[in-house]
Amino acid sequence: MFEAVEVGARVDKAEYEAQVPQLRVELLNAQFDLRLADFPAIVLIFGNDDQGRNEIVNLCNAWLDARYLRTFAFGPPRRDERRYPPFWRYWRTLPGKGQLAIYVGGWAMDAVAGHYTGRLDAIAFERQIAHIQRFEQTLIEDGALILKFWLHLSRKALKRRLKAARRNPGRYVHLDDADWQIYETYDAAMAVAEHLLRKTSSGEAPWHMVEAADERHRNLSVMRTLLEGLQTRLAQPRAPTWAEAPLRVRRLQQDPLTILDAVDLSRSLDKADYDERLPRLQGKLQRRSRQARARGIAAVLVFEGWDAAGKGGTIRRITAALDARDYRVVPIAAPSEEERAHHYLWRFWRHLPAPGEMVIFDRSWYGRVLVERVEGYAREHEWRRAYSEINDFEEQLSESGMVLLKFWLHIDADEQLKRFREREQTPYKKYKITDEDYRNRERRLDYEAAVNDMVAQTSIAQAPWHIIAANDKRWARIEVLKIVCQSLKRAIDGR
Amino acid sequence: MFEAVEVGARVDKAEYEAQVPQLRVELLNAQFDLRLADFPAIVLIFGNDDQGRNEIVNLCNAWLDARYLRTFAFGPPRRDERRYPPFWRYWRTLPGKGQLAIYVGGWAMDAVAGHYTGRLDAIAFERQIAHIQRFEQTLIEDGALILKFWLHLSRKALKRRLKAARRNPGRYVHLDDADWQIYETYDAAMAVAEHLLRKTSSGEAPWHMVEAADERHRNLSVMRTLLEGLQTRLAQPRAPTWAEAPLRVRRLQQDPLTILDAVDLSRSLDKADYDERLPRLQGKLQRRSRQARARGIAAVLVFEGWDAAGKGGTIRRITAALDARDYRVVPIAAPSEEERAHHYLWRFWRHLPAPGEMVIFDRSWYGRVLVERVEGYAREHEWRRAYSEINDFEEQLSESGMVLLKFWLHIDADEQLKRFREREQTPYKKYKITDEDYRNRERRLDYEAAVNDMVAQTSIAQAPWHIIAANDKRWARIEVLKIVCQSLKRAIDGR
Repeated sequence: MFEAVEVGARVDKAEYEAQVPQLRVELLNAQFDLRLADFPAIVLIFGNDDQGRNEIVNLCNAWLDARYLRTFAFGPPRRDERRYPPFWRYWRTLPGKGQLAIYVGGWAMDAVAGHYTGRLDAIAFERQIAHIQRFEQTLIEDGALILKFWLHLSRKALKRRLKAARRNPGRYVHLDDADWQIYETYDAAMAVAEHLLRKTSSGEAPWHMVEAADERHRNLSVMRTLLEGLQTRLAQPRAPTWAEAPLRVRRLQQDPLTILDAVDLSRSLDKADYDERLPRLQGKLQRRSRQARARGIAAVLVFEGWDAAGKGGTIRRITAALDARDYRVVPIAAPSEEERAHHYLWRFWRHLPAPGEMVIFDRSWYGRVLVERVEGYAREHEWRRAYSEINDFEEQLSESGMVLLKFWLHIDADEQLKRFREREQTPYKKYKITDEDYRNRERRLDYEAAVNDMVAQTSIAQAPWHIIAANDKRWARIEVLKIVCQSLKRAIDGR
Repeated sequence: MFEAVEVGARVDKAEYEAQVPQLRVELLNAQFDLRLADFPAIVLIFGNDDQGRNEIVNLCNAWLDARYLRTFAFGPPRRDERRYPPFWRYWRTLPGKGQLAIYVGGWAMDAVAGHYTGRLDAIAFERQIAHIQRFEQTLIEDGALILKFWLHLSRKALKRRLKAARRNPGRYVHLDDADWQIYETYDAAMAVAEHLLRKTSSGEAPWHMVEAADERHRNLSVMRTLLEGLQTRLAQPRAPTWAEAPLRVRRLQQDPLTILDAVDLSRSLDKADYDERLPRLQGKLQRRSRQARARGIAAVLVFEGWDAAGKGGTIRRITAALDARDYRVVPIAAPSEEERAHHYLWRFWRHLPAPGEMVIFDRSWYGRVLVERVEGYAREHEWRRAYSEINDFEEQLSESGMVLLKFWLHIDADEQLKRFREREQTPYKKYKITDEDYRNRERRLDYEAAVNDMVAQTSIAQAPWHIIAANDKRWARIEVLKIVCQSLKRAIDGR
């Protein structure tokens, strides 16, 4: 792929100075228009020109309005960052609609450098490439503009650059021994890079190859392509999501047999039994959670279930056994304005646990394929593709060593109605029940089908769904506690 | 993923018989409408229910109009099929617009069975999954409807089925020792399948999970989903390609420096030298091609280049050295009606060489990113995504052991004009020159940019582009012959 950018392209000084002023004006205008647009712009600067990557960022800061531009230069993942999935640091920093972010090296360099230095073996490298494909596709389908640049130095040009850096280290501050090593093993390093470039080049987010030996040519190539990319995307009337189908909610006519019908809701526990087992299990959970913390094991617990199924009560029985510093409960309600400006998964990435921590989601990213699907807040192609987005997300959690537990608390319609009535009678619970809860009840058939599809598409070996019979609250709480203890034990024994 | 289809779903006989007549009428109507539609429908039937997979095909043949339905049940790749890329047999049989094809097992089973039996190791399995993702995405972006079914038997249901088959082998003709082995290693086999299902489930082509223990439930589930899939897609006004941008041709304003500028066109060979070297190289090529044939090495030679650059003459210098049974020259002109009804890559898959054979393409799939781009026959998103489609295609050729050589014959504009004039003066060459050739000349700048992008995006380690200085025909022919001989030698030495 590199021959086409080893042709000796140059721009002379006069031509450069003639072109720059107009280009800067147009870039500023495009940046201004972007601020009002309904998509984010993501620029990835990669290449074997270490110095050039950084100079381009400086140029962007100089030519664009730096107030509305964020640049991120991550080094190799630090020790603590490695305990999170590799994409965690990118998701956290992703621009929202109307924003522009520039990443130096970024996810592409993570993977290439990881494989080149031997940290990622061949399989891990292929997996990482697959994650990159999904990551970029996910953002593009959500409307993002992604522009990727490879700044290229031929072997000869790299050598010239390195020699110049020896003579003038103050000018080439970004070049070091690592760059010399790339030069020494040029063909091998470029083979790794080429493999990634080829696999991650797509019609919507191709790699733009830029010959970087001549700085003026490099600057003009990158900035013109950036401008053209912005202008082209701004000229499109809407986000390029295919099949912008109208919002359409299908209502089930008949009752399908679902996985929920296989749940034995008659299971129960008498009070004496419960009173004896609960403190015992909570004690066990406390010990396990200390051991997990000591080993840096992070855990994510997801609670979904019918309204009034007892999610809150169950969560409180868990947290009662934990040290307040070691867990966070994240209740998920309608997204904020900032959250709506990002991909729907963005807000969940932000809440992931640090090593040793436990995060409990009271409702979760599964809202996309449950309430958003049934109520028509998401378009059909949006919730349909969410299954694989979620699978990829959860796979990354598992690969990074997190414990991931997913619970659906199941009660039948009669029990739910009974609990609604009780809540209405109980002054301090009354606020919990609204007209919407009654409306949701009417759509129970649709929700059951959605739960069934959710389990069919996202219950995977590393993170199966646990469907909990919850007509009896005591039974449900003990079941969940048992599963949490067992799972933590497995993770602890595995370390 | 399988819990949701282990719930004991059943349909009783009376209900089944009440539903079938209406369903059959609607299916026939949908099939009729499909014949007039501008997309193909591809159905993939997979699952651990071997018997059920085949019964569903019989059902489709019974319920649908079998004249307009093609069904394909491939076993594990035969010895000769393994010499082609794994997807060769699927591309050959893909339905065109308005057609319906049903695959039993298909590409999904290839990969799962391959990994399960150890033929594909972990890396090869991941690669195959990536190919499946690309394959399906490529077809979907081209407008195809893909419906995928997993027919599921729980461990218990599979055991019941296998025991029934022992009692009544005439009824369960599709069950054999292999199915017993799957039962014996149920968890391991399902883990492999689950991994593939999860990775290849997408918003546009999700896996439909069907509980298959009860035949009536299985039949209704599959046929209803098939009907709904057809109806939904037929109701869409157009192919679901995102960003259906208007056809738009950008004309370059200024002359960019491209890889072609780096070619030294002054290279030449005098006649005496040529007359001595040509027969020597042709002799060598003859020996090499015999050795290659004996080792079953297939080769694909691609010739692209400017009009009048000398492709035909060069090809004839190659074929003169070959045995007529061992090679085919495939000239690529405008696609036929049948070819237009398929994805543009379809016609090239059909022409791939058998083991030991050489196929020479006089123009090729690169037309998509050359003439179709420059003349606006392809939409921008179509030719932009073609680079990765081509890379994936060529990667499959390389992985299956084929030698792939790509030549661009380069002449400058003056030389081209001279040759046009000569052709007009030569009676038997006059037909070769038309007004279109002169028009293409005017777009030389655009073509040069297209060639540059083509090389930048598709010149990869296993299949680099060879840019041949062809102002001197003798030089070009000798260069090409040398490269062909060298490449064959490398492949022969590698076997």
